[in-house]
Amino acid sequence: MRNQQRREETRSSILDAAAHLFAEGGYDATGVAEVCSLAGISKGAFYYHFASKQAVFIALVELWLGELESSLAGTRTAGQAASEWLLSMARTFRAILGSQTQKTALVLEFWTQARRDAAIRQAVLTPYSRFQGFFQGIISEGIDHGDLRDVDPVAGAQVLLSVASGLFFQGLLDPEGSDWGAVAEMSIRILLDGLRRDP
Amino acid sequence: MRNQQRREETRSSILDAAAHLFAEGGYDATGVAEVCSLAGISKGAFYYHFASKQAVFIALVELWLGELESSLAGTRTAGQAASEWLLSMARTFRAILGSQTQKTALVLEFWTQARRDAAIRQAVLTPYSRFQGFFQGIISEGIDHGDLRDVDPVAGAQVLLSVASGLFFQGLLDPEGSDWGAVAEMSIRILLDGLRRDP
Repeated sequence: MRNQQRREETRSSILDAAAHLFAEGGYDATGVAEVCSLAGISKGAFYYHFASKQAVFIALVELWLGELESSLAGTRTAGQAASEWLLSMARTFRAILGSQTQKTALVLEFWTQARRDAAIRQAVLTPYSRFQGFFQGIISEGIDHGDLRDVDPVAGAQVLLSVASGLFFQGLLDPEGSDWGAVAEMSIRILLDGLRRDP
Repeated sequence: MRNQQRREETRSSILDAAAHLFAEGGYDATGVAEVCSLAGISKGAFYYHFASKQAVFIALVELWLGELESSLAGTRTAGQAASEWLLSMARTFRAILGSQTQKTALVLEFWTQARRDAAIRQAVLTPYSRFQGFFQGIISEGIDHGDLRDVDPVAGAQVLLSVASGLFFQGLLDPEGSDWGAVAEMSIRILLDGLRRDP
């Protein structure tokens, strides 16, 4: 039992060290030796847990996107209208962006490496399509309850994912440039009501 | 005259070589020596044109975002309703994404390096805020002509920029995963008409 606990601590210190180094210096510039040195472990201990630097990176992608997914799902309250949920999500956007500088910096690394490495791409795309499915469910429910117009739920989920991704990447580029929580809320209001004047 | 032409050719071959290397291997992994070698020039010729690797990178940011801006502005025809222009822009999205793989790959490098280097961040943010201004103008005009609802033009421009950036980054991640031109068009239709059912 104590051994298992120690193993988990080692695994978690490898992930922490790698996340720090990948976010600061980039994935390419970081070697297994540096991860071991920062985590204070031997190469043997590293390779007991992970087959390669790529495997640590993929574990981080899955960990981070999994956490984001759970925290999204956790914000849903029973009987809440889809439009209300979207607005409340937008209000939490600043917190997501502001509190986790290291994790958000890693997203750019995920995206960059996903273009170069098929295994990493798969690790990013799988949770991304779960997000798409989650948004699709929210929209279908909103249509069923008469809260939302009868849009194609796939298209509706896609536009939500685009707005969320776009806000995220802009917030990464210029964290102090806007009040991103307020921008997210305004964006969702415009998306709900539309830009076009009724004919 | 002949000298000036040769100088321009050299400058342009440096930019081409650097764009290729930055897009393939990343900015960090690319050195001035490799740029010179690929461009077939001496280090002296390089430093005649650019003070540093950073200066070439910033010249590429400005060149690429400047081209995108001109091509956007060029799509506007006199008297065209704002909502029509938005839909026609969406239809060209696939072409923008599909035809310029190297340039789109560079955008991720721009974003990553902008987080680490203030001069590069400024080079990315300046044209980005010109895009914002351009979209704001389109929306204000649409409101004046009665085509669009009376939204805050700043917020409207922001949501357009978010949708466009989000589609762009998703298209980068998974170019073959969707018909991004069709997705862009559906997204703009939903943004124009809104998600919420009229009360």
